[in-house]
Amino acid sequence: MKNSTLLFLCLCCFLLTKGENGYDLWLRYPPVADKMLQATYRRHISAIMINPSDATLNIARQELLNGLSHLLQTRLSATTTLHQDGTVVAGTPQQSPLLAQADIGGLLKAAGNEGFVIVPKTLQGKRCILISGNTSIGVLYGVFHFLRGLQTAQPVPVLPIVSAPKIQLRMLDHWDNLNRTVERGYAGFSIWNWHTLPTYIDPRYIDYARTNASIGINGTVLTNVNANATVLTPAYLEKVKALADVFRPYGIRVYLTARFSAPMEIGGLATADPLNDSVRGWWKEKIKEIYSYIPDFGGFLVKANSEGQPGPQDYHRTHADGANMLADAIAPYKGIVIWRAFVYSHDNPADRHKQAYDDFVPLDGQFRPNVLLQVKNGAIDFMPREPFHPLFGAMPKTPLMMEFQLTQEYLGQGTSLVFLAPLFKETLESDTYRKGAGSTVAKVIDGSVDQHTLSGMAGVANIGSDIDWCGHPFAQANWYALGRLTWDHTLSSEQIAEEWLRMTFSNDLTFLKSATRLMLESRDIIVQYSNPIGLHHIMGTGHHYGPAPWVDNQQRPEWNPVYYHKADSAGIGFDRTATGSNALAQYQPAVRRQWEDITTCDEKYLLWFHHMPWHFRMKSGRNLWEELCYQYYTGADRVTGMQHTWESLRPFVDPQRFEQVTMLLKIQQQEATWWRNACLLYFRTFSHMPLPAGYAPPDKTLEYYQQLQFPFAPGN
Amino acid sequence: MKNSTLLFLCLCCFLLTKGENGYDLWLRYPPVADKMLQATYRRHISAIMINPSDATLNIARQELLNGLSHLLQTRLSATTTLHQDGTVVAGTPQQSPLLAQADIGGLLKAAGNEGFVIVPKTLQGKRCILISGNTSIGVLYGVFHFLRGLQTAQPVPVLPIVSAPKIQLRMLDHWDNLNRTVERGYAGFSIWNWHTLPTYIDPRYIDYARTNASIGINGTVLTNVNANATVLTPAYLEKVKALADVFRPYGIRVYLTARFSAPMEIGGLATADPLNDSVRGWWKEKIKEIYSYIPDFGGFLVKANSEGQPGPQDYHRTHADGANMLADAIAPYKGIVIWRAFVYSHDNPADRHKQAYDDFVPLDGQFRPNVLLQVKNGAIDFMPREPFHPLFGAMPKTPLMMEFQLTQEYLGQGTSLVFLAPLFKETLESDTYRKGAGSTVAKVIDGSVDQHTLSGMAGVANIGSDIDWCGHPFAQANWYALGRLTWDHTLSSEQIAEEWLRMTFSNDLTFLKSATRLMLESRDIIVQYSNPIGLHHIMGTGHHYGPAPWVDNQQRPEWNPVYYHKADSAGIGFDRTATGSNALAQYQPAVRRQWEDITTCDEKYLLWFHHMPWHFRMKSGRNLWEELCYQYYTGADRVTGMQHTWESLRPFVDPQRFEQVTMLLKIQQQEATWWRNACLLYFRTFSHMPLPAGYAPPDKTLEYYQQLQFPFAPGN
Repeated sequence: MKNSTLLFLCLCCFLLTKGENGYDLWLRYPPVADKMLQATYRRHISAIMINPSDATLNIARQELLNGLSHLLQTRLSATTTLHQDGTVVAGTPQQSPLLAQADIGGLLKAAGNEGFVIVPKTLQGKRCILISGNTSIGVLYGVFHFLRGLQTAQPVPVLPIVSAPKIQLRMLDHWDNLNRTVERGYAGFSIWNWHTLPTYIDPRYIDYARTNASIGINGTVLTNVNANATVLTPAYLEKVKALADVFRPYGIRVYLTARFSAPMEIGGLATADPLNDSVRGWWKEKIKEIYSYIPDFGGFLVKANSEGQPGPQDYHRTHADGANMLADAIAPYKGIVIWRAFVYSHDNPADRHKQAYDDFVPLDGQFRPNVLLQVKNGAIDFMPREPFHPLFGAMPKTPLMMEFQLTQEYLGQGTSLVFLAPLFKETLESDTYRKGAGSTVAKVIDGSVDQHTLSGMAGVANIGSDIDWCGHPFAQANWYALGRLTWDHTLSSEQIAEEWLRMTFSNDLTFLKSATRLMLESRDIIVQYSNPIGLHHIMGTGHHYGPAPWVDNQQRPEWNPVYYHKADSAGIGFDRTATGSNALAQYQPAVRRQWEDITTCDEKYLLWFHHMPWHFRMKSGRNLWEELCYQYYTGADRVTGMQHTWESLRPFVDPQRFEQVTMLLKIQQQEATWWRNACLLYFRTFSHMPLPAGYAPPDKTLEYYQQLQFPFAPGN
Repeated sequence: MKNSTLLFLCLCCFLLTKGENGYDLWLRYPPVADKMLQATYRRHISAIMINPSDATLNIARQELLNGLSHLLQTRLSATTTLHQDGTVVAGTPQQSPLLAQADIGGLLKAAGNEGFVIVPKTLQGKRCILISGNTSIGVLYGVFHFLRGLQTAQPVPVLPIVSAPKIQLRMLDHWDNLNRTVERGYAGFSIWNWHTLPTYIDPRYIDYARTNASIGINGTVLTNVNANATVLTPAYLEKVKALADVFRPYGIRVYLTARFSAPMEIGGLATADPLNDSVRGWWKEKIKEIYSYIPDFGGFLVKANSEGQPGPQDYHRTHADGANMLADAIAPYKGIVIWRAFVYSHDNPADRHKQAYDDFVPLDGQFRPNVLLQVKNGAIDFMPREPFHPLFGAMPKTPLMMEFQLTQEYLGQGTSLVFLAPLFKETLESDTYRKGAGSTVAKVIDGSVDQHTLSGMAGVANIGSDIDWCGHPFAQANWYALGRLTWDHTLSSEQIAEEWLRMTFSNDLTFLKSATRLMLESRDIIVQYSNPIGLHHIMGTGHHYGPAPWVDNQQRPEWNPVYYHKADSAGIGFDRTATGSNALAQYQPAVRRQWEDITTCDEKYLLWFHHMPWHFRMKSGRNLWEELCYQYYTGADRVTGMQHTWESLRPFVDPQRFEQVTMLLKIQQQEATWWRNACLLYFRTFSHMPLPAGYAPPDKTLEYYQQLQFPFAPGN
């Protein structure tokens, strides 16, 4: 009998570890592997005391019970009175007399509306850990933070922790269509099964909410910015309501994209002119109707007059006219309008880099207080590396919201291991010099530079119907990173990578050392083998999959890669100085001066701002062509290095995820070689220089790469 | 320490049972719940002995180890020599000396090429269970059968079991497009991720193969019959090869749909005329190329000259000309051509019911020996209830293959609990009278009526990217039923339902009693509330979701529901007797006579074959209108009964799947009410009779139902 019990244990472990399909993301809660540490945890944590007086606190209770019982492998008593050491007391002072008397008011004040405190404290003679906040959602955030500490093998807190989010709107933007395709989605299809809503609640909806709450995300835009007005019809609002009801106790508000021409398409009006009274009336009624379904509806995200979308300019009105019309209608319900600054027009001959600035800077100060302007991190479009958007230094009177892209449209899509926190941090830490040195993008965004009360940061979601949500096991880290940075943009990429690795794979230090480096280097590597030295937007037409720098036959200039790299026999790169498009003039003088001078311009941006001769001598001593070759070859070689690193991590990773990443790295290696070969073969037709000695020449011809077709590439 | 061990056990059980997401289908292998039975199993099964001399036998070994260790909760020794009682010896006589000397040659002879024997036998003084076959795949099938016995709480075999499949080609047809949409798919999107193939092997591909092997499926058509020639290009053949390599050791051959115009679309020819030498040469080369990738490629499935697909008739050639051209080209490789009989032409004014017969019967005897004609179970299109297809009684010289539809295009799609085995059995047991009484469809299909050596049965797959594969937990049963019936069409619906329920949910007898009845009644219920008394094809246009009997504005007559029900002030129903389309003449006289006489025609087919007056007196004593009301109301009420039955099963089902089915039954109840109300409101405009007393009138108007729109209904 004893033997069979032991076997039983063994089989359980087998069952639990053989198939890690990734569905649980970073909320896996395996038993604490370090048995000494587990024993310590058990000594300090033996009971929980939480009055589940609302849905959110009930979730907090369930999460504590679930997380702790799995991590500690012990049954915790859930008590209503304090009677033992090691009690975790969670709640708000409003609904917990014990916490009300715990003398934590000063700490709670610093936690604000959504923050939390975690305080080790002896109450009534018993050693306790208090998890509290001024609101229930604050408590839930605190619970997840507390569990994260145990998941990541941190010591039990001995000093108080106070944490409050630096950004107010912490959001995911889903580019999900109503037919369940996802624009730029590489992880299957939309998790929103509109057809079976509102009656069928997919368990995924709950897990989505719970996962987001664990990293502080508090808003979700359900629908694509290339919007369909059908989602605003009653049949769909009932479905949206069902999702909002699921998300509410997790602190997540629902937003929708508003198609600007909706009054015509579903309202039967002849115009969508924002100054037309019927149009204004229609939106007022529609918004009233939405709030009758969803009393805490967050608001609208709007893409207008960009890439063919309708907008106020169709009626010779400004973006401010359009945004304010919606803002006025939604203000009585405390709703928000998030207006996208990603605009460029096919009729505008100006450098696409400049158009958003040209359109929006004159409108600074004209937007209603409940409007945020959502600006992509760079002025082109989510490139592998991109200088920060000039708007961040140019619109002090308007709250600017950050739009990052988690889905890797231009960074290897579904098959590349690219950790994006370094990209996000590179932008956030860039100095706009708006109010002199130190006016970083992060401080513009969080409102501290210009004392805005509204602030926001969004990530275009990389979530789909794949069992592991994100397609690539490591893509989960980018969802995680976005959440963590919306909460606290001062976290380092390394901290975030390590946290995520610990929770997602292992707390083993040998594993962490290699795996953290693997993640931290990954974004530099893809820049090297795809778009080095400031090259950008040379991807395949439409689907953006793989290299196609040669494409020059698209209808509009800015749809062609040749528009961006401008390679010719003299050199390569986009002159954005005063001798060229002068986009640099849109930056503050300190920034402009640094980048316009080729002696001070960081080489990573060189070809972004300058057309440089092939023989230009780089800091490495190589000429530009040689440097290009060096970057492409080094980048591709480093992917082989990533494969070796991963192989060395086999002992630490369950077989299923290990094999998945192994196969994906093999694809990445193939794609890196493809990028390298295709780009160098093509650019060589301009440089007319040979590959430097020591580089194995491509085994395929330029023509081979040029004829590749991907009619069913995903996300297009 | 002892306490914590016990807790550990308890937590493991908690982990294992809380979230049954359905991914494991009927291969869950929970511990045998009846501990007495488990002890008996352990006494009889203590070791396995199998020499994994090829990939298939290695899989058999893994499946035995995995299945037995989980069911029996004990570690089995895997031995290479026989040294203890209770050894399961598996293999073929060719590679196992022990089995070669076991005197089971007579049994094995009866097992044929793919069958198996399971024989309890004492060898060298040790009690053994022998699992053997003449081929490795036979052994694997035997292993799955043996495990199924334990999963379903059957006694350890005391007598030999011999089993051989009655059908040779046991197939799934995927209507999956290369962009991952699935025509008539209601379980998400295609599981074939063409973009990441061939390098990334989704674990699903392996689980798909393994699941199919467990029920004897041995062929899969990867692509939609509405075909895209791109799948025949080298880049895609590499991807197909990768799947074929995964499936091969599981005994599954890969087939593709051949777009008839491929020589033009990807071959650059000016014609696809099957008698043109260039065309014939092109297919020969293409087939040679395919076999260079996939040496055991199964062959082609072809939809030609139907619903806009290209075909030989475009060149005034016959279906036989087209099929034989492909058959000649593929014969050297032992490939098969499966030609679909589902043809109807927009130019043909004949009753759609008659067109396949008209096209194909004259060609009987003209097809090459490696051609099968794949015939849908009925002549219209996978209706909820449909008389068997007249072709089954009319083409003795041609092997006819059955095409069933697992995906519930016309039977409640993704949200209805409908067990299809009764539908399949109804067709299979129908008597064609081709060679007199007893010439059932099943015997036509298995080749026994006309001594064909080729035989086949296919199901249009209901599999998608949903975590539980089939969208509805009970839809998995239809995949299972198809597999089991392809192996042995004499199995009863009840046997199949019970087997599946035992493996998928529980062996508890109280559970099984109610749940089996729930499944067995479900198909009758949906017929009652959607298409009773022989009504058919009155679903929504295009997507086929919900009722739309009023539609009369479609371009072609047979696209309109009014074409099928022909309701008018005199009555309702399609006259297919000699006074009408005379489709009945296509059946053998014994069948025709029964159905053309309204006194002998089963009322379930009444309106299929007859236009009957509203006042016609039914066997129930009700007139036709009253009977229609009775059927619609009874059907909808019975869905409420299904909800109650399911609620009573709560104690036996894990929370996740219980809640899923509960929500889906709620949708089904809403849809049943919708069907009932919409159809009766509409048909009342012809019958001009009131609802009989006692029926609560619909709470919505006919106009309400007529204006419902489903622009994003799935699978369209």
